[in-house]
Amino acid sequence: MTLAKKKSGKAEILTTAKIILSEKGARNFSMREVARACGKSLSNVQYYYPSLEELLSALFEDVIDDSIQKLNEVIVNDGEELKWLVDLIISNFNDVTLCKLIWEAWVNSANCTNSSYALHDFYIKYIEQVKLIILRKIPDMRDDLAKQKAVMCVALFEGLSVLYTVGKNTFIDFDVNDALYTAAYGIINVE
Amino acid sequence: MTLAKKKSGKAEILTTAKIILSEKGARNFSMREVARACGKSLSNVQYYYPSLEELLSALFEDVIDDSIQKLNEVIVNDGEELKWLVDLIISNFNDVTLCKLIWEAWVNSANCTNSSYALHDFYIKYIEQVKLIILRKIPDMRDDLAKQKAVMCVALFEGLSVLYTVGKNTFIDFDVNDALYTAAYGIINVE
Repeated sequence: MTLAKKKSGKAEILTTAKIILSEKGARNFSMREVARACGKSLSNVQYYYPSLEELLSALFEDVIDDSIQKLNEVIVNDGEELKWLVDLIISNFNDVTLCKLIWEAWVNSANCTNSSYALHDFYIKYIEQVKLIILRKIPDMRDDLAKQKAVMCVALFEGLSVLYTVGKNTFIDFDVNDALYTAAYGIINVE
Repeated sequence: MTLAKKKSGKAEILTTAKIILSEKGARNFSMREVARACGKSLSNVQYYYPSLEELLSALFEDVIDDSIQKLNEVIVNDGEELKWLVDLIISNFNDVTLCKLIWEAWVNSANCTNSSYALHDFYIKYIEQVKLIILRKIPDMRDDLAKQKAVMCVALFEGLSVLYTVGKNTFIDFDVNDALYTAAYGIINVE
């Protein structure tokens, strides 16, 4: 099999696997189900991903790589990076598939070392990116304090993805972009 | 069967189910597994909880009721409620079983209406409680603004449970109680 064919085979399986996982949840997710949905044999899927753990890890790494890519695009040097970041985050909230996959990654990382490493690396990069944005706003802030504030901002963004999904038609009855920007600004600027 | 016996049967199943779910994750959670661990027959477990969905819903409702109970105890009218709340939240982070169960509730609510209602009610109560704490700090704040800030604080707390678990030995290398208090204070006080 050529490298290109192997790559496209992997990509096809991952795309299908993401849809199944986000629609049916981890409890109903299996190699057999993914194979069926791809129109491949089980052994063909196993050729690319020998175990369910490996498939899940690859899936979460893929979702995480996409998120990091999007984050990198936010840094555009116009002084409004925090605003762009908040807009990106809220638009991601409306991508229910993405949200569900990230939550599955949280739960999965508790029971799978590979997913846990991928998630750990993701947060390291995410926090670093937000730290850069903070230091552009307040260049003389101590580096360790900027990182601490970046951790709190990322926590706020991640937690809001849950609250937004649960309450978008009820208790989230305000301009969420504006409220999130203001809250992040409060975290960054408090002494 | 007496009501008391039925209650204790239910409680025993829920306690065992919580341990299995937090240790093995939703993918390896089944009625059969719970029955085995309780030393009961499958049909006996089904007498109390006819389906897996019903067992999971009852389990999440139980976890959520406990959390609301703990939250209610935080309101002690000494003007330091935000500090007590932050301390409670951080101490809950170290209860890995509780964290995993809450994350499973997030994921499960995406695919199960009953869990989703329970989670929704939980956040309504949680936000209301934090709103009260905010209004004690700043009594003349507009009610809708206090609620909006309460949503952001709860998002911060929930998101930090993920980041804390992923990074407690690496990027969470600062006094997390102090940092969380300061961040929440920043959200509450920003104009």
